[in-house]
Amino acid sequence: MTLSPQHFKAFEEIVGEKNISINPSTLSVYSYDSTRTEILPSCVIFPRHTQDIQKIIAYAYTHKIPITPRGAGSGMSGGSINEGIILALQKHMNKILHIDTQNLCVTLEPAVLNASLNNALAPYNLFFPPDPASASFSTIGGNISENAGGMCAVKYGVSKDYLLSAKLVIGTGELIEVGHKTYKDVAGYNLLGLVCGSEGSLGVITELTLKLKAKARFEKSLLVGFSSLKSLADCSCAILSSGITPCAMEFLDTLTTQALNSRFNLYPTEAKAILIIKLDGNFEPSLEFEASEIEKICKAYNPLSFEVAKDKQEEERIWFGRKNASQANSIYGVKKLNEDITLPRSKVADFLERVQEISQKYDFPIPCFGHIGDGNIHTNVMLPSLSSLSEGKEAIKELFSITLSMGGTLSGEHGIGLSKAPYMPLAFSSTHLKLFAQIKKAFDPHNILNPHKMGFDPS
Amino acid sequence: MTLSPQHFKAFEEIVGEKNISINPSTLSVYSYDSTRTEILPSCVIFPRHTQDIQKIIAYAYTHKIPITPRGAGSGMSGGSINEGIILALQKHMNKILHIDTQNLCVTLEPAVLNASLNNALAPYNLFFPPDPASASFSTIGGNISENAGGMCAVKYGVSKDYLLSAKLVIGTGELIEVGHKTYKDVAGYNLLGLVCGSEGSLGVITELTLKLKAKARFEKSLLVGFSSLKSLADCSCAILSSGITPCAMEFLDTLTTQALNSRFNLYPTEAKAILIIKLDGNFEPSLEFEASEIEKICKAYNPLSFEVAKDKQEEERIWFGRKNASQANSIYGVKKLNEDITLPRSKVADFLERVQEISQKYDFPIPCFGHIGDGNIHTNVMLPSLSSLSEGKEAIKELFSITLSMGGTLSGEHGIGLSKAPYMPLAFSSTHLKLFAQIKKAFDPHNILNPHKMGFDPS
Repeated sequence: MTLSPQHFKAFEEIVGEKNISINPSTLSVYSYDSTRTEILPSCVIFPRHTQDIQKIIAYAYTHKIPITPRGAGSGMSGGSINEGIILALQKHMNKILHIDTQNLCVTLEPAVLNASLNNALAPYNLFFPPDPASASFSTIGGNISENAGGMCAVKYGVSKDYLLSAKLVIGTGELIEVGHKTYKDVAGYNLLGLVCGSEGSLGVITELTLKLKAKARFEKSLLVGFSSLKSLADCSCAILSSGITPCAMEFLDTLTTQALNSRFNLYPTEAKAILIIKLDGNFEPSLEFEASEIEKICKAYNPLSFEVAKDKQEEERIWFGRKNASQANSIYGVKKLNEDITLPRSKVADFLERVQEISQKYDFPIPCFGHIGDGNIHTNVMLPSLSSLSEGKEAIKELFSITLSMGGTLSGEHGIGLSKAPYMPLAFSSTHLKLFAQIKKAFDPHNILNPHKMGFDPS
Repeated sequence: MTLSPQHFKAFEEIVGEKNISINPSTLSVYSYDSTRTEILPSCVIFPRHTQDIQKIIAYAYTHKIPITPRGAGSGMSGGSINEGIILALQKHMNKILHIDTQNLCVTLEPAVLNASLNNALAPYNLFFPPDPASASFSTIGGNISENAGGMCAVKYGVSKDYLLSAKLVIGTGELIEVGHKTYKDVAGYNLLGLVCGSEGSLGVITELTLKLKAKARFEKSLLVGFSSLKSLADCSCAILSSGITPCAMEFLDTLTTQALNSRFNLYPTEAKAILIIKLDGNFEPSLEFEASEIEKICKAYNPLSFEVAKDKQEEERIWFGRKNASQANSIYGVKKLNEDITLPRSKVADFLERVQEISQKYDFPIPCFGHIGDGNIHTNVMLPSLSSLSEGKEAIKELFSITLSMGGTLSGEHGIGLSKAPYMPLAFSSTHLKLFAQIKKAFDPHNILNPHKMGFDPS
């Protein structure tokens, strides 16, 4: 697909010649994301502001030209790559506009990095809680568009819980503001909740206002070794049922623990599963109280080890394994197919048993780790060679089927995009898919915004 | 509007003769809600289960018969009254189906009362946080349909924050399940977020799964008297910015304080504004710490009084004024027009000043109180007689205009329904209203579900 000279000229008139490119090396830079799928766009446009985007989309609407917004291109499901025009927001639309310390919120352009936002908020003792692993290089617009989660979702929730309002250019080029800088709002349908997680398919977000939280003064980290994943999963449920809500509650399965031990000798050698917990709060004795309550609860599940970090150094060591889990697992294969399925918390242990069966059936190691506190499991099908790719995809299809049969969902935080689109009919009825298509049509009547995504037919 | 004998017979065949009525006294019972508007339905049907509802709506779809779901009829915006059929859920669809202590959630039918649910959860030390003032007589289905809030929203959020999944019969009679029993879910568009707060206009909810929280072990209440609303509002912002999140943070304005004092002599006579705070948590010393931190913060705003409840009795006294605020204000007029506008928290003091100007302009007292923690203010235009109604509505229109000009919203928790529908064009552009209409059409192509509501034209 190429852009006609006439269309190129029209866009060039809107943004100026410096802000549009069909240079092959530029196109190449914008042709991939973290899925390593590649789709070459026909043109990259760098809009300067909301008005540019309105004009660009109005023109694209008239001429039915596909257009896909993109932040840092760090997405895990192919949400920011496409044919047609890539609307690259990171060059110009990357400013924090207003930190509002009275209403605890921030107004910003979409391509501010998650980490840059949190750096800017630190002097005010505020933070934006969603903390995807990509926080240092993913944009807030991307986080909101994918409804990104992260480790602290168990306590602080996910991106949608922080979106107060957005300026949005829909598929006709019309600009709307959705939401308010208020903590309650029930006027009209919840368009804001719909836009969040819509993967750039309903509109281009040009400005956002996000809720913030005051940063807790103290943190405390704990590491518990278990002799089985079942004990770990049951113990996690018991901790949360007790009324303690850690700000992170992560696990490593047997394979991941072994991979980490083989390199770093971190955990008791007999440990089959590792639970890592972070507590936070403003009153230090309260954290000590919670840690001792957690220790009491853990005892009922016969832990092999129980450790509370006494200082920053010990805390870093506790988290070292979790942060290096993904790389450590590379010993199991040359190609990783990682997914982010999410289950009811109580089903995690059963699910991980079923993962073992699939691993044996296909003879692929499938190490798992992730957010046990909210049932969001990162499954990693490790392939011995690239030639096993289609078998690997079969294994993943089985993982999805088991997930869905246990009441889970295809994705907890990465999105559907291109990667999971083929599995959507497993998860949704034709009625759901029809509703998705009609919603898409309402916002984007010519199906120009990030088309061919999310596994439904918008025609 | 009357129902033809043929249609009546068709519905009777679905639910049985005991579960359908056109008896005038029954129709009358279902003709009003808390707005005191009356619309006589043509028929009331008491469905027994989801299948009944599917059949009823499929028939209504074919024959284009309007149908409105209703829980307890306690709504504040006319959401459960209409012409056509009232689908009265409270008779049969009022069962709690499963309390899941591992995943901290409950599955239930829509017409369980909020208070009944919380009574049933108490033995498990769990609760459903949204606490509208109507909790003892409103249904969970109604709470979810209106996205109800309450006093503890400042810490615990509103109904939409607790909806995990729903069975929904859309306007064609098709049944869909939306959402999962998972704490993260980004697959497909967020239909769940759209259904919550849609006032029964997108589908009839026949079953719900709700997130729960473990009940905190300790509570502590505080009362602070201020010499001005401005000091109270600024102090409230400062408390929340400090990182303390009370589970309730309420205020009473000067008129409300005076009304309460004239009857009960509760507060320092010179107090122009009262702030009432509730803290909760599992570790008692932490509440003492927070109370002392709040006291320190308050000092900068020269409070007239600062009181921490030492026992249950003192706590009840502290909350007595807030709970009786609405009734106490009845001394100011014979007819009350109360709204639930919501503002950015930092604008509350300015807003309350503007309320005074409107009060003087129209010569109506307008006492205000409510949820200062989330900027959700209950404004009460008190009319000296019913003949002032149209002037009262003019005053409300001005209040709405000021709210919107300050970045606020028409409704924080009551919904739009019939009551606020005329004001929707003040708050939304034609593009918004068109999107609402198209979403409505996707779920309800024949516009039969709770039609003529929420201020947009679905045709």
